[in-house]
Amino acid sequence: MIITLKKNAPEEEVKKIREHFESMNLRVNMIKGDEYNVFGLVGDTARLDERKIMANQWVENVQRVSAPYKLANRMFHPEDSVVDVAGIPVGGKSPVVVIGGPCSVEGEDQAVRIAKEVKEAGGCMLRGGAYKPRTSPYSFQGLGYEGIVDLVRAREKTGLPIVSELMSVDKIDEFEENVDLVQIGARNMQNFDLLKAVGHMHKPILLKRGMSAAIEDWIMSAEYIMANGNPNVILCERGIRTFEKYTRNTMDLAVIPIIKEKTHLPIIIDPSHSTGNWKYVEAVSLAAVAAGADGLIIEVHDHPDEAWSDGAQSLKPEKFAQLIEKARKIAEACGRPLR
Amino acid sequence: MIITLKKNAPEEEVKKIREHFESMNLRVNMIKGDEYNVFGLVGDTARLDERKIMANQWVENVQRVSAPYKLANRMFHPEDSVVDVAGIPVGGKSPVVVIGGPCSVEGEDQAVRIAKEVKEAGGCMLRGGAYKPRTSPYSFQGLGYEGIVDLVRAREKTGLPIVSELMSVDKIDEFEENVDLVQIGARNMQNFDLLKAVGHMHKPILLKRGMSAAIEDWIMSAEYIMANGNPNVILCERGIRTFEKYTRNTMDLAVIPIIKEKTHLPIIIDPSHSTGNWKYVEAVSLAAVAAGADGLIIEVHDHPDEAWSDGAQSLKPEKFAQLIEKARKIAEACGRPLR
Amino acid sequence: MIITLKKNAPEEEVKKIREHFESMNLRVNMIKGDEYNVFGLVGDTARLDERKIMANQWVENVQRVSAPYKLANRMFHPEDSVVDVAGIPVGGKSPVVVIGGPCSVEGEDQAVRIAKEVKEAGGCMLRGGAYKPRTSPYSFQGLGYEGIVDLVRAREKTGLPIVSELMSVDKIDEFEENVDLVQIGARNMQNFDLLKAVGHMHKPILLKRGMSAAIEDWIMSAEYIMANGNPNVILCERGIRTFEKYTRNTMDLAVIPIIKEKTHLPIIIDPSHSTGNWKYVEAVSLAAVAAGADGLIIEVHDHPDEAWSDGAQSLKPEKFAQLIEKARKIAEACGRPLR
Amino acid sequence: MIITLKKNAPEEEVKKIREHFESMNLRVNMIKGDEYNVFGLVGDTARLDERKIMANQWVENVQRVSAPYKLANRMFHPEDSVVDVAGIPVGGKSPVVVIGGPCSVEGEDQAVRIAKEVKEAGGCMLRGGAYKPRTSPYSFQGLGYEGIVDLVRAREKTGLPIVSELMSVDKIDEFEENVDLVQIGARNMQNFDLLKAVGHMHKPILLKRGMSAAIEDWIMSAEYIMANGNPNVILCERGIRTFEKYTRNTMDLAVIPIIKEKTHLPIIIDPSHSTGNWKYVEAVSLAAVAAGADGLIIEVHDHPDEAWSDGAQSLKPEKFAQLIEKARKIAEACGRPLR
Repeated sequence: MIITLKKNAPEEEVKKIREHFESMNLRVNMIKGDEYNVFGLVGDTARLDERKIMANQWVENVQRVSAPYKLANRMFHPEDSVVDVAGIPVGGKSPVVVIGGPCSVEGEDQAVRIAKEVKEAGGCMLRGGAYKPRTSPYSFQGLGYEGIVDLVRAREKTGLPIVSELMSVDKIDEFEENVDLVQIGARNMQNFDLLKAVGHMHKPILLKRGMSAAIEDWIMSAEYIMANGNPNVILCERGIRTFEKYTRNTMDLAVIPIIKEKTHLPIIIDPSHSTGNWKYVEAVSLAAVAAGADGLIIEVHDHPDEAWSDGAQSLKPEKFAQLIEKARKIAEACGRPLR
Repeated sequence: MIITLKKNAPEEEVKKIREHFESMNLRVNMIKGDEYNVFGLVGDTARLDERKIMANQWVENVQRVSAPYKLANRMFHPEDSVVDVAGIPVGGKSPVVVIGGPCSVEGEDQAVRIAKEVKEAGGCMLRGGAYKPRTSPYSFQGLGYEGIVDLVRAREKTGLPIVSELMSVDKIDEFEENVDLVQIGARNMQNFDLLKAVGHMHKPILLKRGMSAAIEDWIMSAEYIMANGNPNVILCERGIRTFEKYTRNTMDLAVIPIIKEKTHLPIIIDPSHSTGNWKYVEAVSLAAVAAGADGLIIEVHDHPDEAWSDGAQSLKPEKFAQLIEKARKIAEACGRPLR
Repeated sequence: MIITLKKNAPEEEVKKIREHFESMNLRVNMIKGDEYNVFGLVGDTARLDERKIMANQWVENVQRVSAPYKLANRMFHPEDSVVDVAGIPVGGKSPVVVIGGPCSVEGEDQAVRIAKEVKEAGGCMLRGGAYKPRTSPYSFQGLGYEGIVDLVRAREKTGLPIVSELMSVDKIDEFEENVDLVQIGARNMQNFDLLKAVGHMHKPILLKRGMSAAIEDWIMSAEYIMANGNPNVILCERGIRTFEKYTRNTMDLAVIPIIKEKTHLPIIIDPSHSTGNWKYVEAVSLAAVAAGADGLIIEVHDHPDEAWSDGAQSLKPEKFAQLIEKARKIAEACGRPLR
Repeated sequence: MIITLKKNAPEEEVKKIREHFESMNLRVNMIKGDEYNVFGLVGDTARLDERKIMANQWVENVQRVSAPYKLANRMFHPEDSVVDVAGIPVGGKSPVVVIGGPCSVEGEDQAVRIAKEVKEAGGCMLRGGAYKPRTSPYSFQGLGYEGIVDLVRAREKTGLPIVSELMSVDKIDEFEENVDLVQIGARNMQNFDLLKAVGHMHKPILLKRGMSAAIEDWIMSAEYIMANGNPNVILCERGIRTFEKYTRNTMDLAVIPIIKEKTHLPIIIDPSHSTGNWKYVEAVSLAAVAAGADGLIIEVHDHPDEAWSDGAQSLKPEKFAQLIEKARKIAEACGRPLR
């Protein structure tokens, strides 16, 4: 960690700061510059709080040299993590997975029907929302537990593992028992109580990136889950919020090589929420596979205009099947199969 | 609500769409354009879901004419709401309130000591975090219930009502019993389960704006609380996330006249989190008062460089007292006293 | 165009507004709503200025139904435009092109040497900056005309058409004579005097997206060039500015299907400026090809750490050659050859 | 400047890097860390190019300790600069100035009429656009030279100095001769050829912040003008582009204390472009004065709904006069008169 000190800082104060860090078992190096002096701290700086150091009036700036995450950091865990989702490996050199399903579960019939179509099209897991985070209190809020039961029924009929979003700590047991891959949504990416709680689960976690989360914040949220005991985190990019209005969110696919460089965790891409428009889903999906994503999570509905939520970004099953065919070719051109 | 239809939409489909809306008791007007046809819907459109309508392949676009919020909407509630916080009115023509206190409660001594300084400087409520949302799992996470007890002690000694952040549903009773103004933090602004829960509380809620929340999203989150039964919502702007690096967040003070135009709710400003730097807090505070804010919430610490969190943005008590003196003059120049 | 009128607008005023539009040969339809009244305007609304209409105190809001661009609009020009760059077709079903070369031209030797390596690796055009837009006045500003001459020499030796950035109107003749594809940089995307001037050139224009340009603004800048007489515009995405710090810019590859839906113009992708880091260039390039880009423009330098500008994002020739090999496979998997 | 080197960098390479900097007369200090080694460079690092250094494969990261600007830097010029605009001092402890006038000049009558109203209301300079940067090629592009003549006529009749936007180098003589304060618009903030050219003018420059410009970029653009010989730069904040839709742009008033801390230049605020809506102009203007702005530049039109551009954000003269009255009271409460 590099601490820039004001040139006019009294010697007494500089000494105090130095001793403070030394008392924390950090080695302190000082460089005297023309306009500023600089302390370089060596040792375990991940536990230091930049903003606390900045509070000292003689400190001009604080910059990290090492990343603030450890468990998620590839530097200390060079091999790819492969996360097991009910028998399906995700990450590393495992085949690319495609998850499909409706935004909201609307009942057993719908869940089973779409699950079958997802499977037939080549998808290997079923997604579906039972608890729905909706911007408006007047919008449909999800079927709740009934929706989870419908998904379980769909899994029985098709064998597809199920992915669903957990919104609050009091439903942890329900998800532990029934859901194969527990999604933390973008709006809860920094709901730290929820992160700690899923850190104690025994199911893998799909951690979506928040709409205003820097990549580093997102990795720090994965670190929360891991530090609480659950190493099985899959990251999921779904776009960030920008001024652009032609898409719902803006997704930088550069996150794929970045996540693979900085961490050892698998990353999958959600082209449905990032674009917000079914017309753009295929192009972005193919791009993600070419960039090296470990998987895709795509909204599929057989009657998008009757979907209870987010029909605008849902693909019809036949379009989903076409997408998978094309994605398969791209994956193969990249030397990696699609599951 | 205005629905733009593709010019080549088959008449049969257009008829279906029209009948669908008419079956919902909406009046449908059609305008035939050169490139598109347009439906204008009249009636209670707040319960319609734009994205569901957009899922129809013949629909090009959907635009709201009326705002999607009702209870918070000034159109249906022209008078300012004045929210009572343990006897102190906030909003409307009430005097401007200044809330001060440490980012984190660090113990009874610290809480009481700073509370006295806040009071002496002219502050009328005490803030302090007992449960802290921290980006890193390795940072101090707050004293928890012990911190709440310390705040209560500080209130006993000074008479200042207390403001603290609630992070999870399972602490609701603790807050209902002890806290005078319950803060929902930026990271939980769209934690809808938490919003619903505080909608059932009997304490006023301080709803911070999320870092990537459009003003409309923020008002919709207030609407969640109000729709669940709690009309006592105070909005709190604390900046949004942008590319700018010299401040922690970017705060558009235009939110003050906008919130007053669109809603009847009080709005207070948090210059500490928005700038992230104590040096800029005074200027932004004075600006907020001049723009018509109903209050300020400011981090105050007697030893910022020893604060357990966010010292970088905390004012020392003497600076806080100076700020209040200046703010008082500005408030008076605007024809409104400072409490 | 949809104009929302305040419900309390006096009839006299509403009549005036209506007559104003009718006098412009627009058909006006009125829908009476519960909270607002709405005018729907039919006719050539592209020439109307929304912000002028909004100035009327009885107008609440103005929304466009049709896009404000005409010449670039696919609605009026359904076939893909194919732009000829010194004999190389770009766009439509033409093979994907890869442009390579140094950020800055550093002399004839360097230009010729890198041009040969670009050609050998499979690139089909040479890029190189002679006039450089630099954030700091103390940074290298480009060789100017000498750099253009160096590029011409490199073209003579390799046959590769040359692409270079034009920064001011007074160099138009120099570029008309020497450069095959005239680049307008991101920082000049709304330098309207420059756009008008290149609208009179007889060379194709490569129009980069501005760092804060919405897709619609970018298309409007293409419209400026086209409306001044030059239909040969190729759009180039290079990322937008967001809060993310791990990349230089954030690039939404969804622009590829969007540009192809809204316009008939070719689109190429610049992975070097968007990521700002050579390590991420390959992944983003492959993604762009998979998403349907018409080409790539990539910075290549044989000694990046001695490059006079932007070495951090430049690929070495051997990496560039590898990238092209992989891109070729992806292009073929998509049923489109790489040139 | 702090350079982070990969731990596995070969000694030979580290030596080369060190020697390279030493050959540039920089002192190099090395700190050996656990995960990285760090070079601290001491000396004149403003002329170093971070991105060139980052191109070295053994370099992980480069961070500046000192700001990259010198002439604008308060560190080397501790006194406030006061810029003289045709006899009116701007900056330092000079009275706060209010500039008013139409977005576009529409003819001599209009210019003179509004100038008189601006003067009567208490404004001390006249703004007006003769050359207009418009997003659409189909919008009114300004009266050009005729508009400049109209402004000159208005100055003759009222004595108000005139402010107008220069869009291209070939109009420099026209502006040098006629205009008192030469505006560089947001879209040209990084039109470096134009910045260099106005660096040779003998008139003060009003440099607007670009829509996606970090504060540091903006100061660097001022540095361009200053480094070319013109020290008379006034900075003008007009908002940046964010996801928020209720305002045209988002303006962080924290720029006022920041600019005053980092530079010695005057700063004025444009509440019209930042909000884009006349209803919010007064609140933001008062806020800016309270935060310590050196001036305001406000759009005023006697018939906003007939304005040829941007009527939506223009104040009527009577509202402008009220605003000035209120601003005067705020300025006085801050201990600084309004001119």
